[in-house]
Amino acid sequence: MENVSQARSYSGTQYVYRHDADTLDCSMNFGIYLPDNLSAPAPALFWLSGLTCTEDNFISKAGAQRVASELGIILIAPDTSPRGEDVPDDPEAAYDFGLGAGFYVDATQSPWQKHYQMRSYIEQELYRLIMESFPVDPEKLGVFGHSMGGHGALTMALRTPDKFRSVSAFSPICSPINCPWGEKALGGYLGEDRSDWREYDACALIEDGASVSSVLIDQGTDDNFLDEQLKPGLLESACTTAGLDLTLRMQPGFDHSYYFIASFMEDHLRWHADHLR
Amino acid sequence: MENVSQARSYSGTQYVYRHDADTLDCSMNFGIYLPDNLSAPAPALFWLSGLTCTEDNFISKAGAQRVASELGIILIAPDTSPRGEDVPDDPEAAYDFGLGAGFYVDATQSPWQKHYQMRSYIEQELYRLIMESFPVDPEKLGVFGHSMGGHGALTMALRTPDKFRSVSAFSPICSPINCPWGEKALGGYLGEDRSDWREYDACALIEDGASVSSVLIDQGTDDNFLDEQLKPGLLESACTTAGLDLTLRMQPGFDHSYYFIASFMEDHLRWHADHLR
Repeated sequence: MENVSQARSYSGTQYVYRHDADTLDCSMNFGIYLPDNLSAPAPALFWLSGLTCTEDNFISKAGAQRVASELGIILIAPDTSPRGEDVPDDPEAAYDFGLGAGFYVDATQSPWQKHYQMRSYIEQELYRLIMESFPVDPEKLGVFGHSMGGHGALTMALRTPDKFRSVSAFSPICSPINCPWGEKALGGYLGEDRSDWREYDACALIEDGASVSSVLIDQGTDDNFLDEQLKPGLLESACTTAGLDLTLRMQPGFDHSYYFIASFMEDHLRWHADHLR
Repeated sequence: MENVSQARSYSGTQYVYRHDADTLDCSMNFGIYLPDNLSAPAPALFWLSGLTCTEDNFISKAGAQRVASELGIILIAPDTSPRGEDVPDDPEAAYDFGLGAGFYVDATQSPWQKHYQMRSYIEQELYRLIMESFPVDPEKLGVFGHSMGGHGALTMALRTPDKFRSVSAFSPICSPINCPWGEKALGGYLGEDRSDWREYDACALIEDGASVSSVLIDQGTDDNFLDEQLKPGLLESACTTAGLDLTLRMQPGFDHSYYFIASFMEDHLRWHADHLR
């Protein structure tokens, strides 16, 4: 790991590291915030960002370090796709596929499958690197994210609830099978057989029996993507049918931006701290 | 005024407006955060940003809205220079002169004097626009800023303490007369007669008799610009000689970034709230 940058932030240090990611066949940056006063091993959260983001958006705009330092929680913020000149991008360089839009899947289709293995990268390679390199308690690890990253957080926690013990999301893509962003991404990375998409769809995973102890979701009512792309109603229905404990908070007037995320970040961090205790 | 954007942020709304600035002969953006629950008229703070910044850096990275909404303080964040294709820039497009580097002076030298009138813009034109358009109490107005904007805040408050009733700064350029950034900017905008520079130098203003009731300054000890450009020791000496109440806090390990600013933003907002009461 190469130390790209570090800066004091509240009672802790915000680092960016760079490493060679074998699963992605490229170099990757990730952010990690280490509070000064940690119980060892300490609770930690993976933050998964949304479309177009890098590791930088969360660490510079979400304001999470203040409460993380108070609670003694480590925050890990990966990038959202493989990177580099060798990595193929959307043919039209669209923002919703390719670079900045890995969708936290393991691609099976050419030319994407060589690099676009974000599921394995986060769940296996980065997970192992973090556990080997930092004082994280593997039994106190949670995951949260925004939009595409909310989808990533929900699906990772539903598939591996023993690895990610708590999960929350801001304006997640609740059912990529049922929205244009998801259809483009899952079709592109996984091919046209929709049965292959179900392990990357929170609602389908719940329908197929996956579960977590509870979920917190915040969603702004003035989010431009709410009706066409995000569809929290589908998740609400799936959770009701399955008896899964979902707290869905519709936040009046809030949009899809980091202003929204920052406004409710403290609630999410305290919620995770309670559930990881 | 044209509404460029607005977003709910904590218990309030973060706006960006655009208007034709006569003093600068160009269109300008500024950010304004309006808490929901304001006493009318309400206290307000101008935030002056540093080199390379626009109105966006503060509103997206400083995390000030949380405590401003709690305290009922309006926050106004102007851009740092005139903007537009007609506005001349540093011949080498350096970051420390021209666009993004107005230094809060009224330029007297060609070709800068046509647009680079940031002192009059902030103190007169934007001030009037804010007072006419928003419920700001003119007797509860303060100013603060970072680096070049810390210099701007200090010099504006020292020249017009009846307009700006409280002042604080993060890593300010304490004496532009005595550092490379300041010598380049003041020489370029004001010409080579150094006596013309003194009204734009906090230390010189204090030596010449200007005063404010008190000043809070935070400065990171690991700031790369500390020794060559910022020189808080010069301000400390000037304040000691003049009997001016300076609280200078050297913050161990912090750098010049918005991670530093965000970490101590709450302290500054509460300090201003106390002094404007």
